[in-house]
Amino acid sequence: MSTVLTMTAPSDTYRARRRKLAATLTRPMVLMAGRAMPRQYQTNTIPFRAGSNYLYFGGPPIEGGVLLVEPGSDGDAGCTFFRTPAHFEDTVWVGAVPDDEALSLVSGIASNRFAKPGELGDRLSGRAATVVSTPCPVTKLWSDELGLQAPSDDDMLAIINLRLYKDEHELVAMRRAADAGVAAHLAAMSAVGPGKHESAVAAALYAELIAHRCAGSFSAIVTVHGEVLHPSGFVNELAAGHLLLCDSGAEETGGYASDITRTVPVSGSFTPVQRQLYDCVHRAQRECVAACVPGRRYRDIHDLAAFIVCEGLVEAGLLRGSATELLERRAHTLFFAHGVGHLIGLDVHDCEDFGDLAGYTVGRERRPHFGDKFLRLDRDLEPGMAVTIEPGIYLVPEIWSEASLVTPFADCVNRDAVDALLEGQFGGIRLEDTVVVRDASAGGPENLTGALPIDADEVAAIVRG
Amino acid sequence: MSTVLTMTAPSDTYRARRRKLAATLTRPMVLMAGRAMPRQYQTNTIPFRAGSNYLYFGGPPIEGGVLLVEPGSDGDAGCTFFRTPAHFEDTVWVGAVPDDEALSLVSGIASNRFAKPGELGDRLSGRAATVVSTPCPVTKLWSDELGLQAPSDDDMLAIINLRLYKDEHELVAMRRAADAGVAAHLAAMSAVGPGKHESAVAAALYAELIAHRCAGSFSAIVTVHGEVLHPSGFVNELAAGHLLLCDSGAEETGGYASDITRTVPVSGSFTPVQRQLYDCVHRAQRECVAACVPGRRYRDIHDLAAFIVCEGLVEAGLLRGSATELLERRAHTLFFAHGVGHLIGLDVHDCEDFGDLAGYTVGRERRPHFGDKFLRLDRDLEPGMAVTIEPGIYLVPEIWSEASLVTPFADCVNRDAVDALLEGQFGGIRLEDTVVVRDASAGGPENLTGALPIDADEVAAIVRG
Repeated sequence: MSTVLTMTAPSDTYRARRRKLAATLTRPMVLMAGRAMPRQYQTNTIPFRAGSNYLYFGGPPIEGGVLLVEPGSDGDAGCTFFRTPAHFEDTVWVGAVPDDEALSLVSGIASNRFAKPGELGDRLSGRAATVVSTPCPVTKLWSDELGLQAPSDDDMLAIINLRLYKDEHELVAMRRAADAGVAAHLAAMSAVGPGKHESAVAAALYAELIAHRCAGSFSAIVTVHGEVLHPSGFVNELAAGHLLLCDSGAEETGGYASDITRTVPVSGSFTPVQRQLYDCVHRAQRECVAACVPGRRYRDIHDLAAFIVCEGLVEAGLLRGSATELLERRAHTLFFAHGVGHLIGLDVHDCEDFGDLAGYTVGRERRPHFGDKFLRLDRDLEPGMAVTIEPGIYLVPEIWSEASLVTPFADCVNRDAVDALLEGQFGGIRLEDTVVVRDASAGGPENLTGALPIDADEVAAIVRG
Repeated sequence: MSTVLTMTAPSDTYRARRRKLAATLTRPMVLMAGRAMPRQYQTNTIPFRAGSNYLYFGGPPIEGGVLLVEPGSDGDAGCTFFRTPAHFEDTVWVGAVPDDEALSLVSGIASNRFAKPGELGDRLSGRAATVVSTPCPVTKLWSDELGLQAPSDDDMLAIINLRLYKDEHELVAMRRAADAGVAAHLAAMSAVGPGKHESAVAAALYAELIAHRCAGSFSAIVTVHGEVLHPSGFVNELAAGHLLLCDSGAEETGGYASDITRTVPVSGSFTPVQRQLYDCVHRAQRECVAACVPGRRYRDIHDLAAFIVCEGLVEAGLLRGSATELLERRAHTLFFAHGVGHLIGLDVHDCEDFGDLAGYTVGRERRPHFGDKFLRLDRDLEPGMAVTIEPGIYLVPEIWSEASLVTPFADCVNRDAVDALLEGQFGGIRLEDTVVVRDASAGGPENLTGALPIDADEVAAIVRG
């Protein structure tokens, strides 16, 4: 049995991507697959996942694989692929590694351009080179030994400016990840009920991901404490009256991610205030998805969500005043403290290892204040970009205990109503889909995960079974 | 909502362990919890799992936690616990961190002995100190900055000599991990059938682990290519005639592991030769479990398994000659190339981060030859040790293509019979349980995972449903 090579695009696509990258380089660039990451000790590893940049430029998904791209190369002759030829004993333990012919076929690099990892130093022969790796401790050590340098902003932007725009091969993969994510959420919703535990819902969710041969694109959130934005563990019992928040995505075999959030009433029916705030978040989500059109500034979509949240909070009697003024004062940050979404692709927060160079157009910076500063994306949208849209409303006890945040809004907050929801363990509501930006002529925004029910009545009916 | 502190033992047990450790130390020892490990990029992490040594000595399971144990200390006053007080914004993202009172209660370190991580350097004030950490890149960097040294063999042996013997608190946790692992295997067996995929079986297995609030103690193996000892992915379709090998364990919330393997016929019934070899592996497994008694050298248990495998291979017409002589020539390594088991506890290969210092009594070394050298454990068993027993028989194409291995046995191998099995994709059979060594007066070996059916007729009946 040999390792299966799952690649997203045909080899000429990878050659073209490497050619475009090479045209921008001034120094050789080393792209590393990394090795399986350790869990609690070195030899107990989690399933291997090659580095996204390495994968994007056509590196086959094998441990320790390395691409060397020479400046100005044509994507084939100017590239070297380094792999460790399989040792007999390794094949007994992990199965046969694909042979050079197979590796050449999928990567688009002629096998006479293959070398052993030990030869990388010779190939560079003292030239300054950059490395784009993974957090894998082994490859990090190796990069340090070879004196490889961190990529410059220009190097990173050259990669980002390719990865930002998903081609048809990538979209096929992302639809596959979306479909698996939708199936997992449906299974999760169906497993919800009073007296069950978060762990039972998470079990149903992960079973569906695994059955689709997907990994989680991140560690799933399944919680009745939706007010905690990124909790871990599935320890709580579900009780009638609770809202259960599930935030989970799939990573398909080529590495592409989906990201979805749904929030459902444990009992199968919303209380009036839950329903009111749910419908508000749903409207914000719908309108923001529709706003994912070329030319729209993503930060404005965030503020659109914030505006609708302000409107909803006024209607629900939690805030007082005009939504326009409340938005201007950023009053929504008390209830909606995170950003409305992020880039998505080979990483669930796409290219986030390059920091805000990916999410923020050069010259733009994060707004400084609590809530606003958590927005991960502020680019003008263009066709082919893939983003999430995930507005929410939360009652976070820690926020309402923080006088520096709350006092400035004393005049416009109905604190009694807030306290009533805090006491009732309202938790939080978040609704999220994965969306591709397209021209109107191509049909407008493509909601990859739109097949998953989101309407309040529909999700409640699924919970009731 | 605050993070739940799940600790295995009462605080006085942790104090006693630290006191015993401190009595052996000549320099301060730093034990690090580590941080959540990254998956493919730095901020996409897998669920946090604190370092086993840190946990063993009473470190609460919070990211970035550090224990400093001073030589000769009493386990409390001579110990410092370093934790980062929660910042308001962190609590919004990940929930409230337990307060000092809670941390003190579970760790048995008075809260006036707590400090911030930044103070670790001051506390050491230039003294040479050792660090026992995890592979976490962040803590590694920090250790390097502080100039902390790798533990000496004596330091490691001091830890190993405590961790080798499981106390009642640990056994309670291991039984919990065993029960979850048994449930997961039962669910997996019930999901087996022709036309299904390995992924569907893995889904059933992981769902049960998650529903029990367990993680996998390692990445599960679910494969019809059982001849590959550690394959990844669940890509194959199950067909009648195949054997499906599942090797998977649970890690309960305190960090303790189980490890179980079962092999079942996809169709629900064994072919005659499958049945014959299954019964041989089963007999080896049963006899080796029974041999887990104080005073028995583990390597001899390995050789007991090898002897029974030789007998079975002769009976099945694959080898010719006397089992005693075949064993002496190590002919079984062609079919049973791995070791019969390993230590287990807080790590599924317990203490393996200390290398063979844990598995091999000082003065003993691995035997040099293929197969034999893969044995991870060669100690004389003592009460409280926990080990796995996992003999197997495999038809590995790579082995039978390797003339240097096969030629020496040309006289005693029935190559036609071997080739027939290779052509029929026999795969492999492995049967494994998790066993605690006890005195005869305490009832002899405790098979923690013995509740899971293993008899050929029984497992086939479960598959048939």
